[in-house]
Amino acid sequence: MMHENITLAHGGGGRLSRQLTEELFLPILGNRYLLQLNDSAVVEPGEGAAAFTTDAFVVDPVFFPGGDIGRLAVCGTVNDLAVMGALPRYLSAAFILEEGYPLADLRRIVRSMKDTADEAEVTIVTGDTKVVPRGAADSIFITTAGIGYMNPGMPVSAGRAHPGDAVIISGPVGRHGMAIMTSREGLGFSSTIESDVAPLNRLTAAMLEVTGDIHVMRDATRGGLATVLNEIASQAACDIILEERSVPVTEAVRGACELLGFDPLYVANEGVLVACAAADAAGALLEAMRGQTYGTEAVIAGRVGNSGSGRVVLETEMGSRRVLDMLSGEQLPRIC
Amino acid sequence: MMHENITLAHGGGGRLSRQLTEELFLPILGNRYLLQLNDSAVVEPGEGAAAFTTDAFVVDPVFFPGGDIGRLAVCGTVNDLAVMGALPRYLSAAFILEEGYPLADLRRIVRSMKDTADEAEVTIVTGDTKVVPRGAADSIFITTAGIGYMNPGMPVSAGRAHPGDAVIISGPVGRHGMAIMTSREGLGFSSTIESDVAPLNRLTAAMLEVTGDIHVMRDATRGGLATVLNEIASQAACDIILEERSVPVTEAVRGACELLGFDPLYVANEGVLVACAAADAAGALLEAMRGQTYGTEAVIAGRVGNSGSGRVVLETEMGSRRVLDMLSGEQLPRIC
Repeated sequence: MMHENITLAHGGGGRLSRQLTEELFLPILGNRYLLQLNDSAVVEPGEGAAAFTTDAFVVDPVFFPGGDIGRLAVCGTVNDLAVMGALPRYLSAAFILEEGYPLADLRRIVRSMKDTADEAEVTIVTGDTKVVPRGAADSIFITTAGIGYMNPGMPVSAGRAHPGDAVIISGPVGRHGMAIMTSREGLGFSSTIESDVAPLNRLTAAMLEVTGDIHVMRDATRGGLATVLNEIASQAACDIILEERSVPVTEAVRGACELLGFDPLYVANEGVLVACAAADAAGALLEAMRGQTYGTEAVIAGRVGNSGSGRVVLETEMGSRRVLDMLSGEQLPRIC
Repeated sequence: MMHENITLAHGGGGRLSRQLTEELFLPILGNRYLLQLNDSAVVEPGEGAAAFTTDAFVVDPVFFPGGDIGRLAVCGTVNDLAVMGALPRYLSAAFILEEGYPLADLRRIVRSMKDTADEAEVTIVTGDTKVVPRGAADSIFITTAGIGYMNPGMPVSAGRAHPGDAVIISGPVGRHGMAIMTSREGLGFSSTIESDVAPLNRLTAAMLEVTGDIHVMRDATRGGLATVLNEIASQAACDIILEERSVPVTEAVRGACELLGFDPLYVANEGVLVACAAADAAGALLEAMRGQTYGTEAVIAGRVGNSGSGRVVLETEMGSRRVLDMLSGEQLPRIC
């Protein structure tokens, strides 16, 4: 590659665009779909229904403890498919780059996307790159979209939470948001907080294998655990009781949250899901989850009630109860 | 909507994000897929293979004569599917918004996306919105991805151009690029140049209906007609002879190009396609194209040769011949 930094011509559609594709993207991501160099990839979405989703990623900093924007962009879309009960299969990736962006950083990010895609067993089959003049965007934004095969026997939807369901959380909450926040602020914490960013599709596949009684799965991203529980309670018109003492939070996250004034229940995760499942299936489900890399710390942390209030109630460690609202206002811009 | 401008909280995943979805996106785009408010849309991609593509849009200005970033974002993805011979069906849309962006402008753009999607008979089934602080992005970027049903009997691919094929252009070239350029510069041209931005899927469907002998279809976007012909010649390892006098260029585009120092053959189009088809099918194909809204000015403007050079040769109006190279360098940043 003649240039060390992205130039406007890399996004112009001409010779340098072609060179960027052939010398950077294809050697790392290269597969039979991308190598066609056509306007679309031709894929086999399988029989029956498919899941389709998209997410834009604008995280700052681009590289953070435990991950980077590339891993985040792959995981975000994989997880949105996985929590629908789908088997993630094909991804697209569209890059918006600021003029002057270092090619070495782009290469590192694309390599991370490839590694994460391999881990999740998905293929990046199509893409696009645009370059904007210096100052028109901050370094790099990535938008992924994804297609997954639906599992026809497994309707999973936020509206299906049912009174009596156990509420299961797959791991400690607040790590992604606090990893970004502490690295952004350059705070000298004694221990680095690593993001939980991870592809959850093997975890969800293992969960769906063990029982047909999972009613809801959601990944607890922006707005954190509290917000996603509110969405579930609202869509299912039920109430959810969350036991504060059962919600896993690492010491490092708890400490950083206290210092910076955040509530870990509202901090974004990128590798944690919430499930509502029939209570009598919860034990087997938990066991299956704990056998998976990203589910070893799974716990039952609450239950779906039958008040029909659409509210989330926190049973505090002190024994009191309070309503846990959705996130209002913005806690952390550019967290993902 | 309480706010008149986008705030960081609109992208935070909490209450205001929800409100933006419920009060702006859903009333305009609302359909049974989006209304599920799940992490993915569940779609039916049909039997057999599907086409999958993505494009990011960063055009400046966002509103331009003949269109806007919303129409562009829908057409760009629809056309990438259509030129593969696919029937475009489902779209995703991911927005990156700058803090302070006027909600009225966003509403106008989303309305334009809906109108264009209706025209193209595609459905926007899933989406995402991120907000970045003032200065971290310039106003609004939109990334669309799309899924289309493949027509199993119709393999269309840039590598399939064949010696003897007629090269057909669906309409006058250079309008989109010059519409952006003249409106950006605030140049007082006597006549406004309107972008050609349009969904081409009805045109491609009509073309595929009339003959099975279409070997290549490509939309001539970034890099213009000359660049896409070079890509076809290179991928098929053939040469392409383009007759300058047959390439349609409007007087307004020709005048603006001369004044500003552009070659219309390299200027981006967003509603013009190039096809290579067996010469004996070209007459019927042209007739079918001219019966379509976005094909009335279709012409045969060249032929595929058998030198195997991978080059594009221009036969000039003066009767001389010169090699027409790919675009090198960037003509127009943020053209799409």
